[in-house]
Amino acid sequence: MPWRPTSSAPRRRWRPTRWAPRRSRTMTRTYRRAADYVAAALIFLKDNVLLREPLRPEHLKPRLLGHWGSCPGITMVYSALNTLIRERDADVLLVTGPGHGAPANHAGLWLEGTHEHYDPALARTEAGLTELARRYCAPDGFPSHLSPAVPGTLHEGGELGYALATAFGAALDAPDRLVACIVGDGEAETGPTAGAWHSSKYLDPVTCGAVLPVLHLNGYKISSPTVFASMSDDELLSLFRGYGWDPRIVDVTDDPDGEPVAAAVRAAHTGIRDIQGRARTGRVLERPAWPMIVLRSLKGQGAPAEVGGKRIEGTFHAHQVPLDRVHDDPEQLAALETWLRSYGPEELFDDEGRPVAEVLDACPSGGRRIGMQAAGDGGRLRRPLDLPPLEPYAVDVPAGPGSAQASPTEVLADWLTEIMRRTAPARDFRIMSPDELASNKLDGVLRATGRGYVWPVEEYAEHLTPDGRVLEILSEHNCQGWLQGYLQTGRHGLFPTYEAFASVVDSMLNQYAKWLKMSREVPWRAPVSSLNYLLTSEGWRQEHNGYSHQGPGFINNLLTKKSTVTGVFLPPDANTLLVTMERVLADTGRINLVVAGKHPAAQWLTLDEARAHCDAGASVWRWASTDDGEDPELVLACAGGIPTVETLAAAQLLRRDLPQARIRVVNIVDLCALAPPDRHPHGLTDAGFEALFGTELPVVVDFHGYPSAVHQLLHGRPHPGRFHVRGYVEEGTTTTPYDLLASNGVSRHDLAITALRHLRGRPAAGELAARYELHRDRLREELRRTGVDPAEITEWTWGS
Amino acid sequence: MPWRPTSSAPRRRWRPTRWAPRRSRTMTRTYRRAADYVAAALIFLKDNVLLREPLRPEHLKPRLLGHWGSCPGITMVYSALNTLIRERDADVLLVTGPGHGAPANHAGLWLEGTHEHYDPALARTEAGLTELARRYCAPDGFPSHLSPAVPGTLHEGGELGYALATAFGAALDAPDRLVACIVGDGEAETGPTAGAWHSSKYLDPVTCGAVLPVLHLNGYKISSPTVFASMSDDELLSLFRGYGWDPRIVDVTDDPDGEPVAAAVRAAHTGIRDIQGRARTGRVLERPAWPMIVLRSLKGQGAPAEVGGKRIEGTFHAHQVPLDRVHDDPEQLAALETWLRSYGPEELFDDEGRPVAEVLDACPSGGRRIGMQAAGDGGRLRRPLDLPPLEPYAVDVPAGPGSAQASPTEVLADWLTEIMRRTAPARDFRIMSPDELASNKLDGVLRATGRGYVWPVEEYAEHLTPDGRVLEILSEHNCQGWLQGYLQTGRHGLFPTYEAFASVVDSMLNQYAKWLKMSREVPWRAPVSSLNYLLTSEGWRQEHNGYSHQGPGFINNLLTKKSTVTGVFLPPDANTLLVTMERVLADTGRINLVVAGKHPAAQWLTLDEARAHCDAGASVWRWASTDDGEDPELVLACAGGIPTVETLAAAQLLRRDLPQARIRVVNIVDLCALAPPDRHPHGLTDAGFEALFGTELPVVVDFHGYPSAVHQLLHGRPHPGRFHVRGYVEEGTTTTPYDLLASNGVSRHDLAITALRHLRGRPAAGELAARYELHRDRLREELRRTGVDPAEITEWTWGS
Repeated sequence: MPWRPTSSAPRRRWRPTRWAPRRSRTMTRTYRRAADYVAAALIFLKDNVLLREPLRPEHLKPRLLGHWGSCPGITMVYSALNTLIRERDADVLLVTGPGHGAPANHAGLWLEGTHEHYDPALARTEAGLTELARRYCAPDGFPSHLSPAVPGTLHEGGELGYALATAFGAALDAPDRLVACIVGDGEAETGPTAGAWHSSKYLDPVTCGAVLPVLHLNGYKISSPTVFASMSDDELLSLFRGYGWDPRIVDVTDDPDGEPVAAAVRAAHTGIRDIQGRARTGRVLERPAWPMIVLRSLKGQGAPAEVGGKRIEGTFHAHQVPLDRVHDDPEQLAALETWLRSYGPEELFDDEGRPVAEVLDACPSGGRRIGMQAAGDGGRLRRPLDLPPLEPYAVDVPAGPGSAQASPTEVLADWLTEIMRRTAPARDFRIMSPDELASNKLDGVLRATGRGYVWPVEEYAEHLTPDGRVLEILSEHNCQGWLQGYLQTGRHGLFPTYEAFASVVDSMLNQYAKWLKMSREVPWRAPVSSLNYLLTSEGWRQEHNGYSHQGPGFINNLLTKKSTVTGVFLPPDANTLLVTMERVLADTGRINLVVAGKHPAAQWLTLDEARAHCDAGASVWRWASTDDGEDPELVLACAGGIPTVETLAAAQLLRRDLPQARIRVVNIVDLCALAPPDRHPHGLTDAGFEALFGTELPVVVDFHGYPSAVHQLLHGRPHPGRFHVRGYVEEGTTTTPYDLLASNGVSRHDLAITALRHLRGRPAAGELAARYELHRDRLREELRRTGVDPAEITEWTWGS
Repeated sequence: MPWRPTSSAPRRRWRPTRWAPRRSRTMTRTYRRAADYVAAALIFLKDNVLLREPLRPEHLKPRLLGHWGSCPGITMVYSALNTLIRERDADVLLVTGPGHGAPANHAGLWLEGTHEHYDPALARTEAGLTELARRYCAPDGFPSHLSPAVPGTLHEGGELGYALATAFGAALDAPDRLVACIVGDGEAETGPTAGAWHSSKYLDPVTCGAVLPVLHLNGYKISSPTVFASMSDDELLSLFRGYGWDPRIVDVTDDPDGEPVAAAVRAAHTGIRDIQGRARTGRVLERPAWPMIVLRSLKGQGAPAEVGGKRIEGTFHAHQVPLDRVHDDPEQLAALETWLRSYGPEELFDDEGRPVAEVLDACPSGGRRIGMQAAGDGGRLRRPLDLPPLEPYAVDVPAGPGSAQASPTEVLADWLTEIMRRTAPARDFRIMSPDELASNKLDGVLRATGRGYVWPVEEYAEHLTPDGRVLEILSEHNCQGWLQGYLQTGRHGLFPTYEAFASVVDSMLNQYAKWLKMSREVPWRAPVSSLNYLLTSEGWRQEHNGYSHQGPGFINNLLTKKSTVTGVFLPPDANTLLVTMERVLADTGRINLVVAGKHPAAQWLTLDEARAHCDAGASVWRWASTDDGEDPELVLACAGGIPTVETLAAAQLLRRDLPQARIRVVNIVDLCALAPPDRHPHGLTDAGFEALFGTELPVVVDFHGYPSAVHQLLHGRPHPGRFHVRGYVEEGTTTTPYDLLASNGVSRHDLAITALRHLRGRPAAGELAARYELHRDRLREELRRTGVDPAEITEWTWGS
């Protein structure tokens, strides 16, 4: 029964066979009974887990947690995948969107022996099941949702929307891998999922594996019907064909037999292999329509139909704990016992509680088990990225700081190009970007690879090829999901994006940061490559696009995360950017933000100086300070490319106009160096901090982003009130670059004025500040009139 | 040519008529020539704007800003809508997704006289056009994108993805309104847009207006082809039919005549009126398939085909400024002149620069002009919400603080129910929620209205009805977009959502905050109702769902916004919640977050006390303090429901065990009261702040969210280092409520321990702290074992 991959192929609605009488149930039916039983037991029982005795209240967990609604459907898919793996030795990874259906996943992992592999206490015995039940939703056990502690899992599925994109990321550049992805009908309503269906247009059938989505329609969310369940079969088929898929509907709502799912998975796999086979033997497939399955089932299928006059199975009442008053209500307790016994536990487990042979035989073995897939613990597969030396790419700064000009991202692009070349054989490095590679001056990498895209495009389009390792789509959600899946299966990547729009994935970052934090607490998880953002097209140079394109809040969002998994870097020039990128691309287990400009700008540090600066996190720029920064009366600090220019310019102004003032210039490349070391691992020691900022000195900080980001980090440092932080204060429009700076109070003149306000005992300071104000206002006015910024400083002078 | 609204109706591909010879061009063709000319002139010219003289470099703007690529398509749609309005007196609002195509909108507004209406300097004369060109992208003029300063505009279109949902919000409960929505093919790739196509399933054809989407496929984003342009006609039609629409493709790529667009808009309008007519005469429409248009055009249609060997029209080179070296390259300058003259400006404008009659006649007049629509400045339509008195809903606290129990959101639901009843005739209040109304204990409102949904649902679904004013969809993006459109057209609403998942719309909040900030700077804009979030199902009670459901970062995100448009409120009990909601629902021009619990909890304040407390923003809770809080040695401060309980419990512990300690309890309901008044308008005066917190006193703050939110606000207050802020530090899993608190260091015992650490000169403090630590650890252990939290404090004792 081959799946016809072309969109013109005839399709028919899958008709499930009728429920077979018990005696003819197959092995997999027995398996599913066992898995459903175990899943329900995990939610309800702490004792008598195999129902050897009549069920009594004391066998129940005191607090019932977990979600039953999705479990039977997940088990149908899990079981069908097991069959596929056994029959065809398929390499299958499972991404479960409805992570609250974790009891079903645990059931599968326990039955196949994965749990036992990781912890003998979870053996396939009555004692092991009792322990698993004890741990499920226990404070020191497994959380109610999927989590990194669950073997084979890539995705928590708590915040819904990201399973499908993650699955695609896992399938990229793994030609033998099949990533099955369960998408719940709640999740299907989210924007990110709606946009992720287009991912198949980016999946090269030659060099990549396949994704098999199973859209699981069980009809209800927490208390409302779902949008997708209200769609007719015609609408569903039309929608997914339009997206480019070859969908088939499997309806088991009036037939609790999961066999049609197994048949559909088998047929889909045949269809997938057919597409891959043809593509890999040189046939060009225009618009390959990959198989997908729409599974219609009842919510909580198998739960009691009705208890106490309330319908349960097939309604939203089955979403969470279907019988939530079992402790006190004898009718509910009886219904629970009847329900659990309906699976026939006495036929499913032997005297010691071992699953019977029929159940065990339904499971794959060894590394093919869903929970044992190496890609589900991608750190095991990860090889360090082959990073080229920086030296050939470094910018020469022949005549001292400021003596060269370069676009930091353009310089970086040359080095990234070489990474692309070196990773061509292994195909383990990708760039995901929301269509801004050229705009961000990173399109140099297109010399070494293409933009990956499979669908036919117009002749004028440039650099598009199915196997390209740059993926551009105007969806930060897809970029993030793809990259997460790619990294979590042991590969490397980079996410360059417009700074202001990175916040589109704030919540994905939140969830991924949680994933990384939890992963560190799982002893057997090997670390995966860090998720690295390159935030560019920074707000300070979005004076042309205007206010909507100005927003540095992604930094603030990352700073709320656990400090062990975060880093924020603001390299002030191209060489520092190179050093920073070399470090974050070798890093594991973290989320790093690197903020860098794309416009040609003055270069400050040689490569060696950049290395030393990055080692320190923040350091005194002696050449820009009075007397090498010794014994200062005020510190001018800066973090970020544009702030560095403005701060150096302010220092230069003050050197010229108030040469007796003793000013130290400090540049901060690792923002978290500002935090006390007990609050961030990058935090400077007390001595290190005081060596830069003293304990009483006034400090004027020009920060690339919101001042609040710096204020919060400084809490716990001596006298934080002396830090006068300037940054973006939400003043912006289409204007000139200087005007944008001045309107936020961070032009060189504003910084000099602020410094003068805090230079105590300098009678000339007030007059000078007034002069700067006048100059600033005139300059602003002139630029507003002409609309062009002059290159006001053409020559830098250093030292005192 | 009626549009057949049923999905079984036959459809045909729209075939454009061929380009007609110039002499037969209709009025609207002349109009479009004029509009395209004006749009191009705005990008390039500062002088000689009507090309009275040969074009010379000095006529050019010194810096060329703006995006040409989308302009011709926008003008085609704008012109078609003008025709519809003229012919049928239709009530049309336009939401332009590709806001970077603003020059086209400005052209339409200038030609129809809207610009002139708002500012005589922008009269329809040569001088007026010169001034408009001067202002476009000038620092003191109009930004490059759409903005609140542009009449008739609801949506900036800078960050892409939200136009369609916004358009639906504008159409709700406005039965005569047609909201046309241009969606670019870049924007169409975003998740939020992909999810917004389902909105039509929520649009009641009886009580609501209609949305007419025009998906504008011009093929390219900044430098790559778009996903949608690579889709075949079959795929596009299939996709949108699957979504439930009745799509028609209009292809003008090989025919620059826009007339087919006008015909399609006319036919679509007929189809819309047909659906509405049938629905409004009592016929039940199952799955009404609304018309939509897919417009295929060339990118930057009308620009030079090729200049200097580079193709422009129809390629991504037409995206921004198609000829960017006109200043220096004579070939480009000549090409620009040829291009501009191809529109025949001498035929389009009279001697004084007035558009000729044929152009003027193509425009609607009066309030029907697209720029003059009252709904485009919704504050003009807004009537204050009819708020019921709070008294009948207030919780009685008969025997003092802590003597009553209530679920704050459940209490609120009763009051909201009455609002729903009162607004039933006007239909100007809605609740948008991502399927958590019942889960958030707000489903009481379903007594007064239904869940709005049009598609047929299964019999068991509850409270669904097409005209219901509660909209539930598992898409925060849709909820936010709908509500923005609804508020911006003069109505009222509330967005209750799980606290942790509000961050899904961080970036939408960013952009909306910018919109509100800019709106305040536009003198003629009337303020619209504030956008109010009710963040509930708070993280501290997500110990069952676990870590993914715990995240208070939405507060941090809002705090980065301009302080004039933000408010954050943490009412500690039901009565304070009522008072807070009464205020925010009457408020305008802001974004307010209200954080409140849903679980039954102790009640502290009477309604009068709650009013006084909300007036103050933060106040001493004298009854919980030693000696009425006079002369304290330490302050225990709290913000949020759970922190209030824990803080009061900590105070009670210390009163019992260290009665000589002088402790003041302060509750903070308006978080921004903590900020200095020059940094937030809600900020307490210096005297007010010192009356609560002194200037040197140690203060232990238990904050509902991340401590960093409080630290950043306190900057500028005396000695911020003395504030020891505790809150959520990203420690979480599925555990017990107490364990969740203790793991983040904010249990009552942790707070008491922290206080003891800062009670100077109390020798007993150390020993007592050790006792609390022991007790905390034992309690944690016991609860982790039993899995149930006891109600540890059953009786509150107050005072000293």
